[in-house]
Amino acid sequence: MVDASRHLARVTRVRLTLEWDGRPFAGWQRQTNSPSVQQTVEAAAERLWGRPTLVLAAGRTDAGVHALAMPAHLHAPDDFPLAKIADALNAYLRPVPVAVLAVEAVADDWHARYSCIGRRYRYEIVNRRAPLTWEAGLAWRIGPALDEDVMARAAEALVGHHDFTTFRSAHCQAESPVRTLDRLSVRREGDRVVVEAEARAFLHHQVRSMVGCLSLVGTGRWPVGRVGEVLAARDRTTLGLNAPPDGLYFVGAEY
Amino acid sequence: MVDASRHLARVTRVRLTLEWDGRPFAGWQRQTNSPSVQQTVEAAAERLWGRPTLVLAAGRTDAGVHALAMPAHLHAPDDFPLAKIADALNAYLRPVPVAVLAVEAVADDWHARYSCIGRRYRYEIVNRRAPLTWEAGLAWRIGPALDEDVMARAAEALVGHHDFTTFRSAHCQAESPVRTLDRLSVRREGDRVVVEAEARAFLHHQVRSMVGCLSLVGTGRWPVGRVGEVLAARDRTTLGLNAPPDGLYFVGAEY
Repeated sequence: MVDASRHLARVTRVRLTLEWDGRPFAGWQRQTNSPSVQQTVEAAAERLWGRPTLVLAAGRTDAGVHALAMPAHLHAPDDFPLAKIADALNAYLRPVPVAVLAVEAVADDWHARYSCIGRRYRYEIVNRRAPLTWEAGLAWRIGPALDEDVMARAAEALVGHHDFTTFRSAHCQAESPVRTLDRLSVRREGDRVVVEAEARAFLHHQVRSMVGCLSLVGTGRWPVGRVGEVLAARDRTTLGLNAPPDGLYFVGAEY
Repeated sequence: MVDASRHLARVTRVRLTLEWDGRPFAGWQRQTNSPSVQQTVEAAAERLWGRPTLVLAAGRTDAGVHALAMPAHLHAPDDFPLAKIADALNAYLRPVPVAVLAVEAVADDWHARYSCIGRRYRYEIVNRRAPLTWEAGLAWRIGPALDEDVMARAAEALVGHHDFTTFRSAHCQAESPVRTLDRLSVRREGDRVVVEAEARAFLHHQVRSMVGCLSLVGTGRWPVGRVGEVLAARDRTTLGLNAPPDGLYFVGAEY
């Protein structure tokens, strides 16, 4: 895992924009016995350049979570044309569902994770009784009718600077449970309810936990005010429901 | 294939609205050695009601083509509650990616195919260099930049009442190659180019053939006027390109 390459050759720090289908992966982060997106991209880079390459991303998404534009960085050999990196990595990634959408050279102190000042997620709910077909694993199906207006009102209680202990997984490694949620919107498009979340950073499972609670409000099982109450409780056991990873997309990051 | 059920029990003609992911199927129509959507739905109905059931759809889509709202009909036993048909069929369809979205009773002379007076298709192109990930098999990726305005202009030559011999597969069983194309629109949404087609009826491969030619115009390989020329030629060998099934969706029908 040590990026020894920096000592062996002249390298350029390169920013990648990655897209992936989360279904076959145990998440972004490299793991011993499960396929990860990180290991997949690192293996493609190693095959391309013949040396171990560390790849770091803006966010460490969970198993089954998708990415539409995830920034990451690695060190590429100086003598490899920047304009050919995307095609070359994509050739080695095929047929695994991970793709390099864009590549650009960045400064040596640019860091996909630590330089990131904003992260955006989208959560896709299909609100219908029938099972999903082409979208299985790509959205969360909720049978009972959702009231998106009431969900949007409940979401207002979560926006701002709060202790999000209730919405944090037991495995969360963040030092503090305090985060500033800049935006949490809910809108309907036909039989689809889309939740969008923006923050400098999120806790582990935070978006899925927020969406889970909003869904309980949307179906009428929870009153609108309950979301603010469980936030104030700062107690994970008050969380009503953690939404499945299927509907979650990392959509972009700001630097 | 004979619907003997009508003679054995009192039945109601029922309209289904079906959605499916075309990837695992050889198309709608029942075939001897390949999985078809028709056979899949008929098998679910047979398991539900314990007797062979014929299911007919508004259109016979090809292998790999998807449906978002395909009307079909079958005969259900009178004593089976209409409100439970969708859930019951969906239970037997699982985990195959075909779903019954809606069910309604229709008159005995209502026919999914012969009563249909309008069919709508959508074709999804992702215009980018990188391979597809979660959308593999659900869209057609075209690497070179497409000019959607020039594609829209080229499409105008196809709208109207024409002999579409050029845009018809050699296996087309229609008696006449003449069709009236009511609408063929092209629009861009980010890196996506969407073609929408509406007609009372289409020839076999007509939408894919039209999209294939429009793509040649969009990348500049064909001048705009060439589409009208190959239409006038009434000669299949002048067709530049048949688009793959991946991006094609049957989106709805009118009665």
